[in-house]
Amino acid sequence: MGTSTILPDLGTQIVIPLCAAIGIIFSLIQWFLVSKIKLAHEKPSPKNGFNESLIEEEEGLNDHAVVRKCAEIQNAISQGATSFLYTEYQYVGVFMVAFAVLIFVFLGSVEGFSTSSQQCTYDSSKLCKPALATAIFSTISFLLGAITSVISGFLGMKIATYANVRTTLEARKGVGKAFIVAFRSGAVMGFLLAANGLLVLYIAVNLFKIYYGDDWEGLFEAITGYGLGGSSMALFGRVGGGIYTKAADVGADLVGKSSCAALVVASISSFGNNHDFTSMMYPLLVSSVGILVCLLTTLFATDFFEVKTVKEIEPALKNQLIISTVLMTIGIALISWIALPPVFTIFNFGIQKEVKNWQLFLCVGVGLWAGLIIGFVTEYYTSNAYRPVQDVADSCRTGAATNVIFGLALGYKSCIIPIFAIAISIFVSFSFAAMYGIAVAALGMLSTIATGLAIDAYGPINVLTPKVFIGLIVGAMLPYWFSAMTMKSVGSAALKMVEEVRRQFNTIPGLMEGTAKPDYATCVKISTDASIKEMIPPGALVMLTPLIVGIFFGVETLAGVLAGALVSGVQIAISASNTGGAWDNAKKYIEAGGSEHARTLGPKGSDAHKAAVIGDTVGDPLKDTSGPSLNILIKLMAVESLVFAPFFATHGGLLFKIF
Amino acid sequence: MGTSTILPDLGTQIVIPLCAAIGIIFSLIQWFLVSKIKLAHEKPSPKNGFNESLIEEEEGLNDHAVVRKCAEIQNAISQGATSFLYTEYQYVGVFMVAFAVLIFVFLGSVEGFSTSSQQCTYDSSKLCKPALATAIFSTISFLLGAITSVISGFLGMKIATYANVRTTLEARKGVGKAFIVAFRSGAVMGFLLAANGLLVLYIAVNLFKIYYGDDWEGLFEAITGYGLGGSSMALFGRVGGGIYTKAADVGADLVGKSSCAALVVASISSFGNNHDFTSMMYPLLVSSVGILVCLLTTLFATDFFEVKTVKEIEPALKNQLIISTVLMTIGIALISWIALPPVFTIFNFGIQKEVKNWQLFLCVGVGLWAGLIIGFVTEYYTSNAYRPVQDVADSCRTGAATNVIFGLALGYKSCIIPIFAIAISIFVSFSFAAMYGIAVAALGMLSTIATGLAIDAYGPINVLTPKVFIGLIVGAMLPYWFSAMTMKSVGSAALKMVEEVRRQFNTIPGLMEGTAKPDYATCVKISTDASIKEMIPPGALVMLTPLIVGIFFGVETLAGVLAGALVSGVQIAISASNTGGAWDNAKKYIEAGGSEHARTLGPKGSDAHKAAVIGDTVGDPLKDTSGPSLNILIKLMAVESLVFAPFFATHGGLLFKIF
Repeated sequence: MGTSTILPDLGTQIVIPLCAAIGIIFSLIQWFLVSKIKLAHEKPSPKNGFNESLIEEEEGLNDHAVVRKCAEIQNAISQGATSFLYTEYQYVGVFMVAFAVLIFVFLGSVEGFSTSSQQCTYDSSKLCKPALATAIFSTISFLLGAITSVISGFLGMKIATYANVRTTLEARKGVGKAFIVAFRSGAVMGFLLAANGLLVLYIAVNLFKIYYGDDWEGLFEAITGYGLGGSSMALFGRVGGGIYTKAADVGADLVGKSSCAALVVASISSFGNNHDFTSMMYPLLVSSVGILVCLLTTLFATDFFEVKTVKEIEPALKNQLIISTVLMTIGIALISWIALPPVFTIFNFGIQKEVKNWQLFLCVGVGLWAGLIIGFVTEYYTSNAYRPVQDVADSCRTGAATNVIFGLALGYKSCIIPIFAIAISIFVSFSFAAMYGIAVAALGMLSTIATGLAIDAYGPINVLTPKVFIGLIVGAMLPYWFSAMTMKSVGSAALKMVEEVRRQFNTIPGLMEGTAKPDYATCVKISTDASIKEMIPPGALVMLTPLIVGIFFGVETLAGVLAGALVSGVQIAISASNTGGAWDNAKKYIEAGGSEHARTLGPKGSDAHKAAVIGDTVGDPLKDTSGPSLNILIKLMAVESLVFAPFFATHGGLLFKIF
Repeated sequence: MGTSTILPDLGTQIVIPLCAAIGIIFSLIQWFLVSKIKLAHEKPSPKNGFNESLIEEEEGLNDHAVVRKCAEIQNAISQGATSFLYTEYQYVGVFMVAFAVLIFVFLGSVEGFSTSSQQCTYDSSKLCKPALATAIFSTISFLLGAITSVISGFLGMKIATYANVRTTLEARKGVGKAFIVAFRSGAVMGFLLAANGLLVLYIAVNLFKIYYGDDWEGLFEAITGYGLGGSSMALFGRVGGGIYTKAADVGADLVGKSSCAALVVASISSFGNNHDFTSMMYPLLVSSVGILVCLLTTLFATDFFEVKTVKEIEPALKNQLIISTVLMTIGIALISWIALPPVFTIFNFGIQKEVKNWQLFLCVGVGLWAGLIIGFVTEYYTSNAYRPVQDVADSCRTGAATNVIFGLALGYKSCIIPIFAIAISIFVSFSFAAMYGIAVAALGMLSTIATGLAIDAYGPINVLTPKVFIGLIVGAMLPYWFSAMTMKSVGSAALKMVEEVRRQFNTIPGLMEGTAKPDYATCVKISTDASIKEMIPPGALVMLTPLIVGIFFGVETLAGVLAGALVSGVQIAISASNTGGAWDNAKKYIEAGGSEHARTLGPKGSDAHKAAVIGDTVGDPLKDTSGPSLNILIKLMAVESLVFAPFFATHGGLLFKIF
């Protein structure tokens, strides 16, 4: 059949590797620019055998001491990181081999290591490749993904140490210069890893295709091994090397895996039956477009605008995000138009679903814009240009404990909008194009942020319908929302109370000496007002959620919300109560001094005891308010749903009835 | 039909109110004992009009100043709490009325406020009471539950303030005396509220039965309103009154609601068809037995053993827990034997399931013993007699930040065993007696602890099968387990590093002055060793979980695990990253002093800045390790499941195949 798309297959065969190549070349140009801006050379010290640790200095800025110091620091960091990575890769190598064997044995055993072809699942009249082939190719692609990820991690670390010292030195000449170096270095890493990941994946698909031919399902099943290899290495890189290799790791993983999920789902569409290579490569084409868009956006940052002060960095990055999203939307529209047939069929849970190309565009688009929203929310909650961080800073007035409580509450609160954005993306994209829609929405989200990626993990959960699942993820967020409200309410009340107590000590004569009585009534009034005021939002949240969900989304989504709130709330309740209890008793343990060990930590007033008091203060709202009230939150929503069940069953689910 | 049980219906009608009455009487006796141990009276001060604030003193301990001070403090607390509760109840009253109207209107509208009888759902040949009746009786039972809970909350607060001051005064005479007063006061509250809740519920059921007759389903549907009323008041009590009314609240709620869930499920069993009053009251009979068992256990604590030192308190409470669990097991065995027919039928999702009475006993039993295990785990993690709290105390050496990190990690870790205990209880009890099994298991768990209660919220989630649900709850726990490992790994590495840096400053001459070079290699080695060592457990957790779950539990449970890990992990990842980012930027905000507000907090080294530094340090492992690696955890488990999907589909689910 072939070309039902505007873009011919040959075009696809050129576009994807071309984009990858452009990405790699662009990355090398940026590298060149980063290394070029230094003018004078210093001889490498004897210890310093690595090319990237050469430290140059600017003319006119001849403070040799600073440059030498920087070189020394970079050296130490680079050597430390290299030594760490070598040690880590020894362990990881053993794991890699063991897991590769496991994949081969387990997948090979599915059909008892038979070499004969088997019935295809999507069409039992056809013959597909044996399970043994999937076992072999999965193992190969696993190793390929792992090795790509390991190399990316190593390069990432090298680039980071190479760039950091240059940024530091450039910073002497002004913020603008430093910003450009930092940005260029980020670009080196980002483009190199992303383009590399895309290229390796593309080559693997084409090589595997020589064997698999038209058995797309088998091919893409085997290709998931690539994602597994990449992700597992990334995990070890992250967990093991948190401190060293902050920069190393995810590049290859991101492009590799996410595209993989989309590819697998694409294979159970009509593309596979129609041997439509271009449509089948849609996820990789989206990634290719992503590379071009990022390239354009990078030029905006480094060449079209100039950052002069620290204050301009944040707006510059924000503009980047918006520009890249807009460009990406246009790019996806284009690629959806030329690389997809106007109408095609998705096979999902045995149901056929007809999808138009503009619907698939909307799926990627909704993911993309949800990603932008999540990015903005993250910025709002973590940048000190806005209220939340300023409030956290302000809470430092009353000490570290309030700071910790306010910070935790801020994090909990910051989940609310992203979770709604994810839930809406899942629902919209599923409505348009079933599981394939979700997979490409994840791909869109990936274009802007990494967090949103989680939604493509929804793929393998084939048991839960999206109606239930969106309930589940929103439900799991409710205990965080609720905790954010209750934790901070104690914090704000405490803040007001501390100020009132200070006021009383300052204004009531004899209070400090114990001869006068404090004004309890005002204190009580502050507490009471705070309690009442702060009781209403969490109360309303708990009482209204089942009603709103039941009325607008119906019993299925409501069950999801309850299950989500239950499974996430139980963990928070248990951990909050126990954390609070432990801090309380750790303080008492030090105060009591009942053992040799305890006496080395005390007595009261020692530094260790002061630290214990801070923990105990943080623990109070956790164990007295958040923890126990979460139990009630769960029970209350459940019993309320029970009471209103007959109503929801009859009149509920309005939104689904309308659309 | 009637008595297919050993215990005749008349017996049930006597036993339940009798147990409730015994509970109330026992509570009053304990009250009498608490108030009797004081010998001399002091005249109430003019301000002091409340009966419970009378302060008496012991002969021979005539320190009037202390007694007067205590009286003054109790007065202030009691007045404050009363004033708070009155204000709170005004708001809550408005809510109560509004919500009652809502219940009536919503439930009445189910059949358009029709007064004619409707077909029963369990048997369409029979006629049941109209939806309007359910609306009316649900509203009544909601108000009943709310008022019971409000009264309980008020009494709880009064008893607590009354008892606290006495415990304080008794403490002058020794720990044993104080312990008994505290324990007796707890008993006053516990028995009064639990028995009161049981009695009100029992009376309501009997009154409603006059109208409903044999329509058990309608009756118990209406009775769930009692639970809703109780729980919603308890929520406001908890959230609003966290500080004041710690003691007030849950008594009525606990007994009322949980029993309710079991009653509703019981109504769709053969008991309803058989008009088997005694079997139908099984959940209330279990609660009644619970009161008797607690009574016996209390006697052990107050009369049979004597606590002499602080060290003896914890073992005494632990013995209590064991004794009450053993006695309760015997009690439930007995009540299951005499109050249930040997075999009966549960209707569940249209499927009939035959259940033997000993199977239902095992359901309650598994909940009961799971509760005991959870209780022990809680004690292990929060008592300073064991390692976890001692480690937290020890972490105070390196300051408040390490303390906070270790405390949070402890809380996360403490979720592991309880979640497994809950999952196993759900699965075992569902296997024996479907939803009814789960409801009574929750009842059993309630007997020992409040946390486990959450499982009875599983009731209204009728969409998810237990196979999926146990996966879900365990999956939601994994990010906590994982975070506990990764957060602490940074903490421990930091601890060792701090010690090494101190050692170097002490032993390397000239290091402090900057003339000598530090020994970087040893520092790198410490980090590397720590990283490698601490990388293995979390890595193994992530890589092995899908394999173990897939092989032993199959794809359904695995899907649950993935969904659970996804919905709970996303929240932790977002909140951990943002919390860490916010602390980081709050510190920078203060350091930069870029605004009027920021300058009031700074400069570097100010108290506010010190607090900000602690937050920033706590945030590092959150934003650099826990947050980002959770994304990989989710993706990795998902892609691993995809890779092994063919294997799990063919050879997975061993455990369910065997049993």
